[in-house]
Amino acid sequence: MITKEFGQRIKILRNGLGISQEKFALSIDMDRTYYASVESGKRNISIKNIEKIANGLGITLEELFKGL
Amino acid sequence: MITKEFGQRIKILRNGLGISQEKFALSIDMDRTYYASVESGKRNISIKNIEKIANGLGITLEELFKGL
Repeated sequence: MITKEFGQRIKILRNGLGISQEKFALSIDMDRTYYASVESGKRNISIKNIEKIANGLGITLEELFKGL
Repeated sequence: MITKEFGQRIKILRNGLGISQEKFALSIDMDRTYYASVESGKRNISIKNIEKIANGLGITLEELFKGL
Protein backbone atom coordinates (compact mmCIF):
# COMPACT_ATOMS: atom_id res chain seq x y z
CA MET A 1 0.00 0.00 0.00
CA ILE A 2 1.35 3.39 -0.99
CA THR A 3 0.76 4.97 2.43
CA LYS A 4 2.95 2.25 4.01
CA GLU A 5 5.67 2.55 1.37
CA PHE A 6 5.70 6.32 1.73
CA GLY A 7 5.91 6.08 5.52
CA GLN A 8 8.84 3.68 5.32
CA ARG A 9 10.58 5.92 2.83
CA ILE A 10 10.36 9.08 4.93
CA LYS A 11 11.38 7.18 8.06
CA ILE A 12 14.58 5.99 6.35
CA LEU A 13 15.34 9.48 5.07
CA ARG A 14 14.66 11.11 8.45
CA ASN A 15 16.80 8.53 10.24
CA GLY A 16 19.53 9.26 7.70
CA LEU A 17 19.51 12.83 8.97
CA GLY A 18 19.77 11.58 12.56
CA ILE A 19 16.73 13.58 13.71
CA SER A 20 13.93 12.31 15.98
CA GLN A 21 10.31 12.25 14.76
CA GLU A 22 9.52 14.98 17.25
CA LYS A 23 12.34 17.30 16.15
CA PHE A 24 11.59 16.71 12.49
CA ALA A 25 7.86 17.36 12.89
CA LEU A 26 8.64 20.52 14.83
CA SER A 27 11.06 21.70 12.12
CA ILE A 28 8.34 21.50 9.46
CA ASP A 29 5.60 22.84 11.73
CA MET A 30 3.62 19.59 11.64
CA ASP A 31 1.84 18.02 14.59
CA ARG A 32 4.12 15.26 15.89
CA THR A 33 1.36 12.68 16.38
CA TYR A 34 0.15 13.36 12.84
CA TYR A 35 3.69 13.00 11.51
CA ALA A 36 4.18 9.76 13.43
CA SER A 37 0.99 8.33 11.89
CA VAL A 38 2.25 9.26 8.41
CA GLU A 39 5.48 7.31 9.04
CA SER A 40 3.33 4.40 10.22
CA GLY A 41 1.49 4.43 6.90
CA LYS A 42 -1.83 5.29 8.54
CA ARG A 43 -2.53 8.56 6.72
CA ASN A 44 -3.68 9.34 3.20
CA ILE A 45 -1.38 12.37 3.21
CA SER A 46 -2.01 15.31 0.86
CA ILE A 47 0.40 16.75 -1.69
CA LYS A 48 0.89 19.95 0.33
CA ASN A 49 2.00 17.97 3.37
CA ILE A 50 4.16 15.72 1.18
CA GLU A 51 5.89 18.88 -0.10
CA LYS A 52 6.40 20.09 3.48
CA ILE A 53 8.16 16.82 4.33
CA ALA A 54 10.34 16.97 1.20
CA ASN A 55 11.35 20.52 2.12
CA GLY A 56 12.16 19.43 5.67
CA LEU A 57 14.30 16.60 4.33
CA GLY A 58 16.00 19.03 1.94
CA ILE A 59 15.14 17.02 -1.17
CA THR A 60 12.90 17.35 -4.22
CA LEU A 61 9.63 15.47 -4.64
CA GLU A 62 11.30 13.44 -7.38
CA GLU A 63 13.99 12.33 -4.91
CA LEU A 64 11.41 11.68 -2.20
CA PHE A 65 9.52 9.29 -4.50
CA LYS A 66 12.64 7.53 -5.77
CA GLY A 67 11.85 3.84 -6.16
CA LEU A 68 8.13 4.36 -5.49
CA MET B 1 2.30 26.22 -5.68
CA ILE B 2 2.68 22.46 -5.72
CA THR B 3 -0.99 21.80 -6.58
CA LYS B 4 -0.57 23.97 -9.73
CA GLU B 5 2.72 22.34 -10.70
CA PHE B 6 1.26 18.88 -10.21
CA GLY B 7 -1.82 19.76 -12.27
CA GLN B 8 0.32 21.05 -15.13
CA ARG B 9 2.48 17.94 -14.98
CA ILE B 10 -0.38 15.47 -15.23
CA LYS B 11 -2.02 17.52 -17.97
CA ILE B 12 1.15 17.32 -20.07
CA LEU B 13 1.47 13.58 -19.47
CA ARG B 14 -2.20 12.90 -20.23
CA ASN B 15 -2.02 14.97 -23.40
CA GLY B 16 1.05 12.97 -24.35
CA LEU B 17 -1.15 9.89 -24.32
CA GLY B 18 -3.72 11.64 -26.50
CA ILE B 19 -6.60 10.94 -24.10
CA SER B 20 -9.29 13.41 -23.05
CA GLN B 21 -9.75 14.37 -19.39
CA GLU B 22 -13.04 12.52 -19.41
CA LYS B 23 -11.65 9.29 -20.85
CA PHE B 24 -8.67 9.39 -18.53
CA ALA B 25 -10.78 10.02 -15.42
CA LEU B 26 -13.08 7.18 -16.44
CA SER B 27 -10.12 4.83 -16.98
CA ILE B 28 -8.93 5.36 -13.40
CA ASP B 29 -12.43 5.37 -11.91
CA MET B 30 -12.17 9.00 -10.79
CA ASP B 31 -14.96 11.57 -10.98
CA ARG B 32 -14.24 13.69 -14.06
CA THR B 33 -15.03 17.02 -12.43
CA TYR B 34 -12.73 16.11 -9.55
CA TYR B 35 -9.99 15.09 -12.00
CA ALA B 36 -10.42 18.34 -13.96
CA SER B 37 -10.01 20.37 -10.77
CA VAL B 38 -6.80 18.46 -9.97
CA GLU B 39 -5.38 19.39 -13.39
CA SER B 40 -6.38 23.00 -12.69
CA GLY B 41 -4.34 22.91 -9.48
CA LYS B 42 -7.38 23.45 -7.29
CA ARG B 43 -7.13 20.28 -5.20
CA ASN B 44 -4.86 19.26 -2.36
CA ILE B 45 -4.84 15.72 -3.75
CA SER B 46 -4.00 12.73 -1.54
CA ILE B 47 -1.27 10.18 -2.09
CA LYS B 48 -3.78 7.41 -2.88
CA ASN B 49 -5.29 9.48 -5.69
CA ILE B 50 -1.82 10.50 -6.88
CA GLU B 51 -0.99 6.79 -7.15
CA LYS B 52 -4.20 6.16 -9.09
CA ILE B 53 -3.18 8.82 -11.61
CA ALA B 54 0.36 7.43 -11.93
CA ASN B 55 -1.10 3.98 -12.58
CA GLY B 56 -3.45 5.41 -15.20
CA LEU B 57 -0.53 7.13 -16.91
CA GLY B 58 1.46 3.89 -16.75
CA ILE B 59 4.39 5.43 -14.87
CA THR B 60 5.94 5.26 -11.41
CA LEU B 61 5.51 7.95 -8.76
CA GLU B 62 9.17 8.80 -9.24
CA GLU B 63 8.54 9.47 -12.93
CA LEU B 64 5.35 11.38 -12.17
CA PHE B 65 7.26 13.76 -9.88
CA LYS B 66 10.20 14.20 -12.26
CA GLY B 67 11.34 17.80 -12.07
CA LEU B 68 9.03 18.63 -9.14
